[in-house]
Amino acid sequence: MATTNRQVRLGARPAGLPKADDWQHTTEDVPEPGDGEFLVRNEYLSLDPAMRGWMNDARSYIRPVRIGEVMRAAALGSVVASNHPGFAVGDHVTGTFGIQEYAISDGRGVLKADQERAPLPTYLGVLGLTGLTAWFGLLDVGKPKAGDTVVVSGAAGAVGSVVGQLAKHLGCRVVGIAGGAEKCRLLTEEFGFDAAIDYRAGDLRTSLREHTPDGVDVYFDNVGGEILDLVLTRLRLGARVVLCGAISQYNATQRPTGPANYLSLLVNRASMTGMLVFDYEERYPEGIAALADLLAAGAVTARETIVDGTVDDFPEVLLKLFSGENTGKLLLRITR
Amino acid sequence: MATTNRQVRLGARPAGLPKADDWQHTTEDVPEPGDGEFLVRNEYLSLDPAMRGWMNDARSYIRPVRIGEVMRAAALGSVVASNHPGFAVGDHVTGTFGIQEYAISDGRGVLKADQERAPLPTYLGVLGLTGLTAWFGLLDVGKPKAGDTVVVSGAAGAVGSVVGQLAKHLGCRVVGIAGGAEKCRLLTEEFGFDAAIDYRAGDLRTSLREHTPDGVDVYFDNVGGEILDLVLTRLRLGARVVLCGAISQYNATQRPTGPANYLSLLVNRASMTGMLVFDYEERYPEGIAALADLLAAGAVTARETIVDGTVDDFPEVLLKLFSGENTGKLLLRITR
Repeated sequence: MATTNRQVRLGARPAGLPKADDWQHTTEDVPEPGDGEFLVRNEYLSLDPAMRGWMNDARSYIRPVRIGEVMRAAALGSVVASNHPGFAVGDHVTGTFGIQEYAISDGRGVLKADQERAPLPTYLGVLGLTGLTAWFGLLDVGKPKAGDTVVVSGAAGAVGSVVGQLAKHLGCRVVGIAGGAEKCRLLTEEFGFDAAIDYRAGDLRTSLREHTPDGVDVYFDNVGGEILDLVLTRLRLGARVVLCGAISQYNATQRPTGPANYLSLLVNRASMTGMLVFDYEERYPEGIAALADLLAAGAVTARETIVDGTVDDFPEVLLKLFSGENTGKLLLRITR
Repeated sequence: MATTNRQVRLGARPAGLPKADDWQHTTEDVPEPGDGEFLVRNEYLSLDPAMRGWMNDARSYIRPVRIGEVMRAAALGSVVASNHPGFAVGDHVTGTFGIQEYAISDGRGVLKADQERAPLPTYLGVLGLTGLTAWFGLLDVGKPKAGDTVVVSGAAGAVGSVVGQLAKHLGCRVVGIAGGAEKCRLLTEEFGFDAAIDYRAGDLRTSLREHTPDGVDVYFDNVGGEILDLVLTRLRLGARVVLCGAISQYNATQRPTGPANYLSLLVNRASMTGMLVFDYEERYPEGIAALADLLAAGAVTARETIVDGTVDDFPEVLLKLFSGENTGKLLLRITR
């Protein structure tokens, strides 16, 4: 086993897209687990749009990552030493282990990953917080009924691709919004969406009207900005807008303008509601069981974009999220 | 009885505030009620911010008033001739009778007003759609609990003043936002609000923070614009924003900017939901009974700003809504 632990720490609060010198790369000794703790060697790092928010010094649902702190990240690894009765060497586990090669854990918030049930990366994707976000966001907040028109943005991304597949499974008409022809092909051909709109091609307003002739019952928003504003104009009576993210805004250096068409909520007696997966922690087992069944039945396809590298590659790989290069879950597999 | 019926019709679609020449003043013969109809002589005309929206040629919750059509308005009048078994001469009734001296009705959507229970103007205010909007908007959408902090804008207006009093009755801490010192005095001294913020005086952001030290659980929005945007920054976890109106936007000639702070809904897992009283029509009797009890018990005070005049004065009196001259319900009492 290596004796050093390579880490990436937040070096400065970025303005706009994080730059190379917003990060610090450090090397420490691999720590020893204390009583009731275990040591994890990270194998996959989860790259998520929410990370950008954690880098800002702003009041939010979770405290900001401090300057000099190891960057917060979900990860999957294997237990390599343990003084914890619930975790044995060789166990695969997911948790908030950070952008580093090794992490100490006391087991809180840690889940085991069973390779016999699904490939390991799936536990950071469909069977991880990503899939659970889609599950609870769509079902609990979006409340789709069979026959509803469900629109999802960031549709080829980690959460969006699961949302669309779940909505199809529930009997909805599903329209995905994504950037680029290849992603759109994926939505209809691999994920079974009824229609895909390439927001980079042509007039989004016209495409939306064409693909939602009866309006929109549920809009699952991962992107915010102009796309949210346009979808608001298509809401049906009693529509539900699920606010899950706003990736178009995360690197904005100017104050965003906000959805000018918000009065469509009033005209249509519709709602716009924020959701965070952490609020559903007690129901994770229920969600994971349901998602595992859907995976096994082939109703949901897990897709990851896996980049091989070292923890030092994290800053560069993270940018793929914001340039829209990934489809499905973006993971950094740590090669040594 | 007069033989002529003076009317105000929509002459043109206004840009910004309605001007005198956006209206047509006409005189017709008083119509005769047919079978199953009755003739009402209007006594009070209800002036409502929503009227401005009805004048636009835009898809909304109700069709626009057509050019040349008598302006839509709720009114209270007395039955002066009847071929309807349910309505007798002398009955006082409310309905959508329009800006005119006389109207024909078949009784649909018409309610009787009992002078023994409350003064007639109350049936267009606390015991009319105004009070019902406050009742169902606050209770069904805002869902306040005792101890919650409830903020209401347009707080000295027809709906806002009732919302605040209802919230106090439910044991909430109530903060009203209104324009001008006199309105603010009214909020705390007559309506029993815990605090009042004059949005025209001082820094609204600072005042809001000062008067909502624990944040906001329910925000009942009648105004939209900058005030909505600022209150969003004060939301507590799970807060509910009730979108009831947006009077600051109704005369805008440029596209509004939208609430830039809408992501506070995500951070706080809060919701923003539009409400329209018409959706509660089946429950009007329940709401009116509850409001009548609260009025009788003195828990809610009815307040109207009553302007005496003729139907021809309607265009000018309407503008008082947008200059903020009224407190409580604005009514035009028809003097002959």
